[in-house]
Amino acid sequence: MIPVIQEKIDNLSKPKGSLGRLESLAVQMALIQQTLHPQLMHPCHILFGGDHGIEREGVTCTPREVTAQQMMNYAGGGGAVGMFCRQHGFTLRVVDAGVDYDFDLERYPRIIDRKIAHGTRDFLYEPAMSADEWHRALAVGAEQVDGCADEGANVICLGEMGAGNTSPSSILMHLLLDIPLPDCVGAGSGLDAPGVRHKLEVLTAAVERYKKLGAFGAMDNYPLSIIHYPLPIAPKAHEVARYFAGFEMAAAVGAMLRAAERRMVVMVDGFIMTACMLVASRLDSAVLDYAVFGHQGDEGGHRLMLDAMGAEPLLHLGMRLGEGTGALCAYPIVESAVRMLNDMDSFDHAHITKYF
Amino acid sequence: MIPVIQEKIDNLSKPKGSLGRLESLAVQMALIQQTLHPQLMHPCHILFGGDHGIEREGVTCTPREVTAQQMMNYAGGGGAVGMFCRQHGFTLRVVDAGVDYDFDLERYPRIIDRKIAHGTRDFLYEPAMSADEWHRALAVGAEQVDGCADEGANVICLGEMGAGNTSPSSILMHLLLDIPLPDCVGAGSGLDAPGVRHKLEVLTAAVERYKKLGAFGAMDNYPLSIIHYPLPIAPKAHEVARYFAGFEMAAAVGAMLRAAERRMVVMVDGFIMTACMLVASRLDSAVLDYAVFGHQGDEGGHRLMLDAMGAEPLLHLGMRLGEGTGALCAYPIVESAVRMLNDMDSFDHAHITKYF
Repeated sequence: MIPVIQEKIDNLSKPKGSLGRLESLAVQMALIQQTLHPQLMHPCHILFGGDHGIEREGVTCTPREVTAQQMMNYAGGGGAVGMFCRQHGFTLRVVDAGVDYDFDLERYPRIIDRKIAHGTRDFLYEPAMSADEWHRALAVGAEQVDGCADEGANVICLGEMGAGNTSPSSILMHLLLDIPLPDCVGAGSGLDAPGVRHKLEVLTAAVERYKKLGAFGAMDNYPLSIIHYPLPIAPKAHEVARYFAGFEMAAAVGAMLRAAERRMVVMVDGFIMTACMLVASRLDSAVLDYAVFGHQGDEGGHRLMLDAMGAEPLLHLGMRLGEGTGALCAYPIVESAVRMLNDMDSFDHAHITKYF
Repeated sequence: MIPVIQEKIDNLSKPKGSLGRLESLAVQMALIQQTLHPQLMHPCHILFGGDHGIEREGVTCTPREVTAQQMMNYAGGGGAVGMFCRQHGFTLRVVDAGVDYDFDLERYPRIIDRKIAHGTRDFLYEPAMSADEWHRALAVGAEQVDGCADEGANVICLGEMGAGNTSPSSILMHLLLDIPLPDCVGAGSGLDAPGVRHKLEVLTAAVERYKKLGAFGAMDNYPLSIIHYPLPIAPKAHEVARYFAGFEMAAAVGAMLRAAERRMVVMVDGFIMTACMLVASRLDSAVLDYAVFGHQGDEGGHRLMLDAMGAEPLLHLGMRLGEGTGALCAYPIVESAVRMLNDMDSFDHAHITKYF
């Protein structure tokens, strides 16, 4: 199909290739939807929240209570995520996958309660989740994507809130890509240099303990039989992710896999969502065909992780807020690419000399 | 005023600095409008068209006739510019500042006829414009901006169509920034390597001839008295620009200066509009305070020129179409920045622990 799409794009009334990245995006959209006239319908932003045991180790300057506070803020239309969802026409779902707080759901009816637990366990000492929890969290994400698809969405954007969740992301990157841990660790929501050093020490210790446990061997009752997703590559991603990731991250991985299965566009945000896409791509590499990487931030190693996946993020704006904001801000560019395919005249129709 | 704006931004419900470039953009918008609640109103895109004598020297793969053909295409709502104007809510003005074609204005009533001449003269042999033509073209741009402002616009985006207009842009960059000419010359709308070599030879010869004329001395009847704009720095920019630039470029320079005078946001597109902003900034350096650089393309030297002006373009998408498309695609990011200032909750109001 690619030659047909490319021929259409090359005959639009512009010098060949002159719309740059918009052109490759247009090809991707046409391939995802298997049509020369792709349409972006009812885009939906899913923000998963979850707390992390590792936050207790002083690896972040965001206190744990902020996860719950922000979830209530988002559910009330606040936060950067609400603002950008309104700007770009996204429906927002705020999903509690594992926040350490009991929300008053009558007061916050927009919080979707899918709490797996009140935060993960501290991976400095033990796996963050049980295998059962990991799979339930994956299913939470898949279910939400199904809900969006039922409402007519063919674009999913994913965001997260979870105090401390750059830490598991750095470790996932380190273990899945064999990139030295110091290159994977950054300032998160704003650590100073001693803070980053402490974070690196804690994460180094956690990885050492994990390795001592001996990968698979010590993973209690790893129930391969209940895995719902194809595992063409290696169970390592499942194993590593359930040991270190948060519930909001697991839900995002599940959402990515389901969205790809349903041939939806998946807008990927910054460092944490990129780590989730890395995990998802190890579970089913086809998921990358559906991924649009919205933003490359300054967090240590984000560029390395993107490179490893061959990703070309659309924006480089120094954002590091999470919530999915980088992906949301990139969305108009995807819309521009689709418009180009559908609305732009051909040379022939516009009576313009084709000059290449 | 900057500390007040910064304090407001720092108290929004997000880690300090976490919206990156959006935050510095928000500061710029607040400063331009001198308010903590800036509003972007009735954005207007002005596309100036003009032909170039230098096009006769084989420096471009875009035939001259394409300038007129595309102007008619734009006036009928076609082209990438029309598409992106519709996407982002811009009113489009298509202005003939010097196209080498007599438009049927009854058939194309949306082409605004401000033709200075049927293209510039060939600057390989003589100045592209007379001083009188240069000033009349500046005035065309200023008049269009006034028209937009009268319609309520406080945002101007500028684009151009002119076969061959990367050539004058490269020379302006070379002469105004003392950057070696080979670093300023690129493939334009799609020259191959021998084509770029020929272009460089032609432009080198043109610059040598210009220098032999001996700057000011040989510039016939340079009527400093009719300059309408302040000239705090040097008349060199006027002189160089009228010798090499096109009518569409002169009009854009006039538009930039008038827009800044009226405290409007000026969205700057790629290589050619950046060269125009360079000229404008030499005539009145304050114009840079109003400039938002939308896109950095791959054209030889664009990065060098941006760096020389301390510009941080919002997008890097490998576009090289002109028409103002790079600036238009960047506009939603400016809107996001303004939304942040106006719509985002403060920590206090959102009941979130301020954690920095």
